[in-house]
Amino acid sequence: MKVDGNSYRTIWRADNGSVAIIDQTRLPHAFEVVALVTLDDAAVAIETMQVRGAPLIGATAAWGMVLGLERDSSDAGLAAAYDRLVRTRPTAINLRWALDQVRAALAPLPAAERALAAARLATEIADEDVELNAAIGRHGLDLIRTIAADKPAGAPVRVLTHCNAGWLATVDWGTATAPIYMAHNEGIAVEVWVDETRPRNQGAALTAWELGHHGVPHTVVPDNTGGHLMQHGLVDLVIVGTDRTTATGDVCNKIGTYLKALAAHDNGVPFYVALPSPSIDFTVADGVREIPIEQRGAREVTHMTGLADDGRIETVQITPAGSPVANYAFDVTPARLVTGLITERGVVRAARDALAAAFPERVAAANV
Amino acid sequence: MKVDGNSYRTIWRADNGSVAIIDQTRLPHAFEVVALVTLDDAAVAIETMQVRGAPLIGATAAWGMVLGLERDSSDAGLAAAYDRLVRTRPTAINLRWALDQVRAALAPLPAAERALAAARLATEIADEDVELNAAIGRHGLDLIRTIAADKPAGAPVRVLTHCNAGWLATVDWGTATAPIYMAHNEGIAVEVWVDETRPRNQGAALTAWELGHHGVPHTVVPDNTGGHLMQHGLVDLVIVGTDRTTATGDVCNKIGTYLKALAAHDNGVPFYVALPSPSIDFTVADGVREIPIEQRGAREVTHMTGLADDGRIETVQITPAGSPVANYAFDVTPARLVTGLITERGVVRAARDALAAAFPERVAAANV
Repeated sequence: MKVDGNSYRTIWRADNGSVAIIDQTRLPHAFEVVALVTLDDAAVAIETMQVRGAPLIGATAAWGMVLGLERDSSDAGLAAAYDRLVRTRPTAINLRWALDQVRAALAPLPAAERALAAARLATEIADEDVELNAAIGRHGLDLIRTIAADKPAGAPVRVLTHCNAGWLATVDWGTATAPIYMAHNEGIAVEVWVDETRPRNQGAALTAWELGHHGVPHTVVPDNTGGHLMQHGLVDLVIVGTDRTTATGDVCNKIGTYLKALAAHDNGVPFYVALPSPSIDFTVADGVREIPIEQRGAREVTHMTGLADDGRIETVQITPAGSPVANYAFDVTPARLVTGLITERGVVRAARDALAAAFPERVAAANV
Repeated sequence: MKVDGNSYRTIWRADNGSVAIIDQTRLPHAFEVVALVTLDDAAVAIETMQVRGAPLIGATAAWGMVLGLERDSSDAGLAAAYDRLVRTRPTAINLRWALDQVRAALAPLPAAERALAAARLATEIADEDVELNAAIGRHGLDLIRTIAADKPAGAPVRVLTHCNAGWLATVDWGTATAPIYMAHNEGIAVEVWVDETRPRNQGAALTAWELGHHGVPHTVVPDNTGGHLMQHGLVDLVIVGTDRTTATGDVCNKIGTYLKALAAHDNGVPFYVALPSPSIDFTVADGVREIPIEQRGAREVTHMTGLADDGRIETVQITPAGSPVANYAFDVTPARLVTGLITERGVVRAARDALAAAFPERVAAANV
């Protein structure tokens, strides 16, 4: 996507051989490109969340393997690179998947050929993510186009989104944002309500930043606001991402998604979830009962980081000393509240039969 | 209520003749009692939100009249005090109501008797608020007692609340918190989920503070969390306050209340609204269509204030430069989502006939 007129991905090979990333810990207050020169640079970038979002973490790990193998392409070097990277975020599925894929492809090769082959594979992993999101974008674009056609000419299609399922979480396009960027790029007027997304503020910090720098009109709202907006006809559709979708179409996404789905349902607003099909878990049926919800540290709730008047990044405490907090990271939106799942194969009903029909090979694999 | 074992109201006459308040702008990071010595002190306390909440603003205005009349009890002094105080928060209904009441009672009196009469009236206004809230508390306590009786002995009744409808917003007890404090005081185990309440954080800052210092177990959660908690049976009932309730039982309260009502409805959790009957507006029927929603300044959303590591109170910006924000202060929860209205006359169904039966004299007055 664009940052002030220039095209970027979230990760790319620079001319000098380093791997460039955008330091997302500095957003939204500073846009800084960081050069990863060593395997360890890549590992630290993942650990410190300079890169985040499952697809981008996977791509960064693949490029980390490349940087490692360019220094030491022996069997020991391959094993060391894998071990260093797989430890960075133990629960990240895409990370392990990308690393396994790279290791399996490289292990049989002569050491001298491994670095080049790894670079080809890392490029492929990144390009595949871009194409997956672009496919989601094209299917979502059709939905936006249909809504736009029913409006007076030039009246914006108003989309509400939660958290950051944007290009910053992927290699490019994002998932929930892909249809929005495509609509904007082809001249359809879109306006985005961006949920702040407490407690980590990914909406206010990241989604607002990326939409703003690409030139997409948007408005940041507290998470409490969406119901009021929908009651007053100010939202045409909701599009959110998902961390995990069950075989029956239940959607596990950032905490608060369920509340927006309830409001959409109560007001007849279409509620769509954009997802690459690998995030569907065909082994899970009832999302509310079966998916364990991660609880994160209290400090994300008790403290807030931002830009002080003098330009420093400062962290302040917002809760009383001694008040306990709870920090559930995700919630589950039951399929009955989901209008449709925007996948790379099209918009699929959030129901077992429809998902099985769209992804028969995945169902078969899950039943093995 | 208690602050670390000592009983307080939010406003009281001190022995030295000044009027004492708790500086709520310093909460939750510091507990400071401020002495109002002059009429202007009282006006500034209202203007700078050292006191907030309709009942407390009304009581502070009444005490401001007392301080003014103690210096100048002439007709000119009475008029000047009224004019100074009524300007402080032009939209605060209770403020004007309290001032009108005091002025009307004092104007016919000889100047020499006005100050003493004003002090009697200010005391009455404060005491009436305390009694109103205590009555709400007793009716709400019955609800909590019934829920507690259905639980294993000692298992806490878990209440979720939004914003601060606590004793800090009133003279004592609060509205939504009155049943909670009464249950706690009589030994029923209660635990409170406190919504952070973005963007002004009244839950995290004020409700958490007052519950904590009274000794009520509580947990602060981001506003996004309530739906997840209710899905998992972790909320026994919701009690919120209201700024304005319509003749049909629609409830206008802090933005985000509607989302919690939807989640409660979806999960079979009782959703109660605690209110003193003066906040019912019998001239309005359809809350969503008829009540204009105040939009407040962007800075409440873009910036966050808290305690820096070095003990300073610091304000930081959390949104990207240039991203617009919207800040709707309230939303409307339709009566169909409200289990009951806890009023000083008992728990009333959120419906026109039930409200009319409970407050026939108000309906008669509204129809004049």
